Amino acid sequence: MTKNTGIFYGIGVGTGDPEYLTLKAVRLIQQADVIAYLKSDKGVSIALHIASEWIKKQQKMAILMPYKTNRQAANKAYDTAAEKVSSYLQQGLNVAFICEGDPLFFGSYIYLHQRLSTNYHCEIVPGISSINATTALAQIPLIQQNETLAVVTSRNTDEEILDALSNYSSVVIMKAGVARPRLLALIKQSKRLNTTCYIQRAGQKGEVVIQDVSQLTGKGDYFSLFVISS
Amino acid sequence: MTKNTGIFYGIGVGTGDPEYLTLKAVRLIQQADVIAYLKSDKGVSIALHIASEWIKKQQKMAILMPYKTNRQAANKAYDTAAEKVSSYLQQGLNVAFICEGDPLFFGSYIYLHQRLSTNYHCEIVPGISSINATTALAQIPLIQQNETLAVVTSRNTDEEILDALSNYSSVVIMKAGVARPRLLALIKQSKRLNTTCYIQRAGQKGEVVIQDVSQLTGKGDYFSLFVISS
Repeated sequence: MTKNTGIFYGIGVGTGDPEYLTLKAVRLIQQADVIAYLKSDKGVSIALHIASEWIKKQQKMAILMPYKTNRQAANKAYDTAAEKVSSYLQQGLNVAFICEGDPLFFGSYIYLHQRLSTNYHCEIVPGISSINATTALAQIPLIQQNETLAVVTSRNTDEEILDALSNYSSVVIMKAGVARPRLLALIKQSKRLNTTCYIQRAGQKGEVVIQDVSQLTGKGDYFSLFVISS
Repeated sequence: MTKNTGIFYGIGVGTGDPEYLTLKAVRLIQQADVIAYLKSDKGVSIALHIASEWIKKQQKMAILMPYKTNRQAANKAYDTAAEKVSSYLQQGLNVAFICEGDPLFFGSYIYLHQRLSTNYHCEIVPGISSINATTALAQIPLIQQNETLAVVTSRNTDEEILDALSNYSSVVIMKAGVARPRLLALIKQSKRLNTTCYIQRAGQKGEVVIQDVSQLTGKGDYFSLFVISS
């Protein structure tokens, strides 16, 4: 780490509503020399879309990330991106990686941080995470007093999800849509269907809030979650 | 709910750094007729302090909340506050209750929402929660891939805390300072001291980040937490 290298910023831009950007995110995005962001193979970047109002003259650095991929391909994309970010930092340029939600809560920033934080000065700006955005939208108290909260995903085993549903006051199941029938069966088995809410694409086009999940059938969107409250 | 009543806003203002306010929070605070906030019996309001730059001409409504209290006294204070908010809403005034962190994640807003949401139109603006602010400060990836996360507090039993420490990839223990020796013993028992970080008053005066928790002795601050990562 030398004195003249740039700073690598990990900046959360929230879940979709451009007004969920923090003042700090706006300031650092505006001041950055380079804005880095993930782009799907369809050319879509949700983070760039959210922050677009504040990106004018900064240099843009798209990181192409295949949507359906094994970790090996993703790791290779992050390796290449880290090298490119590194070259900017070596030139003394500040690079801001903008990231949906919060950078350290299922955030893609984590993979770049792991590759760059040993050699470069990193600063992280938290963002509104999906659990806060969705509970605000659906007006569901998430945790209070002596309650407990578990966050799991559809990638976890039935046993892990049932443990959360059995032992925790509130449970959030992330990436729910893709495994919706299986998850609904587990929630039903835990007798918690009555206090379950399904939220899809909070703050984005295609936003859906379902308070009565017994009507849900089939798969849903990738950007979705179940909130099971106390 | 009549058409001419005001709107009740629950607005998260983050954990201390005034730049953690979202653009939406700033706009709605500026537009509100009345700003309501908790005030301790020592005259302190952290939320008011955080948002002070944006509060000029709005009417202020302090809700006196005794710091150390039984729930009965707190409930009475919320009852009285809800009546006062209600009278403003009846006059067609919009009331914004500003709240540290996120309104629905251990937020004091929950108690007013429970008293007012049946009769009035409520809108909630999520805020940067303490788990996102502290992990950003300490640069700790909180959850990724197929990991799991449990959030508990020092108010939970030893059994509940040990369950979280045994079965979840990452664990956050809130309100940690007041019970620090007990919590450290439980973390040690779970053989997770090496990946434990202690953070106190993130973004506020008296901010502390301790990466080596083996050096900690005695009690700490109320606004503090342990992050145990994977």
